[in-house]
Amino acid sequence: MKIDIITVVPEILSGPFSHSIMKRAQTKGLLEVNVINLREYTTYARAQVDDYPFGGGAGMVIMIEPLVNALEALQKTTEYDEVIFLTPDGETFNQKMANQLSLKKNLLMICGHYKGIDQRFRDHFVTKEISIGDYVLSGGELAAAVLTDSIGRLIPGVLNDETSALSDSFQDDLLAPPVYTRPENYKGWKVPEVLMSGNHKNIDQWRAEQSLERTRLRRPDLLNE
Amino acid sequence: MKIDIITVVPEILSGPFSHSIMKRAQTKGLLEVNVINLREYTTYARAQVDDYPFGGGAGMVIMIEPLVNALEALQKTTEYDEVIFLTPDGETFNQKMANQLSLKKNLLMICGHYKGIDQRFRDHFVTKEISIGDYVLSGGELAAAVLTDSIGRLIPGVLNDETSALSDSFQDDLLAPPVYTRPENYKGWKVPEVLMSGNHKNIDQWRAEQSLERTRLRRPDLLNE
Repeated sequence: MKIDIITVVPEILSGPFSHSIMKRAQTKGLLEVNVINLREYTTYARAQVDDYPFGGGAGMVIMIEPLVNALEALQKTTEYDEVIFLTPDGETFNQKMANQLSLKKNLLMICGHYKGIDQRFRDHFVTKEISIGDYVLSGGELAAAVLTDSIGRLIPGVLNDETSALSDSFQDDLLAPPVYTRPENYKGWKVPEVLMSGNHKNIDQWRAEQSLERTRLRRPDLLNE
Repeated sequence: MKIDIITVVPEILSGPFSHSIMKRAQTKGLLEVNVINLREYTTYARAQVDDYPFGGGAGMVIMIEPLVNALEALQKTTEYDEVIFLTPDGETFNQKMANQLSLKKNLLMICGHYKGIDQRFRDHFVTKEISIGDYVLSGGELAAAVLTDSIGRLIPGVLNDETSALSDSFQDDLLAPPVYTRPENYKGWKVPEVLMSGNHKNIDQWRAEQSLERTRLRRPDLLNE
């Protein structure tokens, strides 16, 4: 899978894909992530890519022209399954969308920054608008990083143990059960006995009960869907 | 405000706070962000911080001991308003929580990685569990970055224009209206006439209508809260 990300602040994305699981996905050749600097595609002086909003008001708006230039240049070599714009008024991202998007071949993500991007680009070129949650960020960069991470780890072969993602929260509409590791006794706080029993049937049952109980308590909405 | 972030992969967080609005917040002295490497607080050989889960199963679990060591060392100089654990089964983060947390003085954020952290640390030391959305990430690092960005930009003085955050999506339970910038006519696609009228009363009214219309269309749930 290839994910191209267009941004005006590529430096923000220098860390997230170079380490841990995302690094492994790229080393294995399962995922390619390219961060593209929008400023390379502007025809305006001093690499200008944004301007004041028509009608007045606070904040800057990214212009349609450099966005179209960048998109057309990238499309010369890549056919995108989706042109995604990260925006708080998009469809709310969830694990189901992550699963669906992990089956695609090429994704393009557009990051707004400051006040947003010219609406005409959204109207004519964007195929999917996604929000990672009901809050506002400085730009779409962290949202693109979140999407890339959650999608990338679902590509078969990225996680060492295939069952690792299957036991995550949301994969079965349940929250994950509590986990414990060494030491068995830490200053008097002990690990639940069943986990030390070696009886895998009992352990599986305890985990299923804990998952359900935690979901009932914290996210009853997931059980009603 | 000070935000301390404990992680086993500090490299992931090298980018997000060194640029754009988060950089400005720190340069102005309004926000201090420290990324703390959990491996500096372990007493195990080879800086080990995680181990296999009791009861078997996929993934590694971060041990309670280094977490407590790190917390106690940090608490010698800082009194935290909240010890936050980023986890998909936490309370779902939203703009209201961002507003509330932006009023705090010192926040500690704990990032899980791999399968999670020992439940005993959550039971005895964490004061607030937060999820940035219904999806699973490789670790809490990007979630901590998202929280820091959304909270940090709300600290008075961080954004150049105070009204900039007020006109964002969610601040009034409405999505933001469309924005447009130069050129007025791009290959036949024109900016709505009202925005070019110079009549600020009409512009404000158009924006309010567009906000409401977009919210009705995309997020009717926000209007019923």
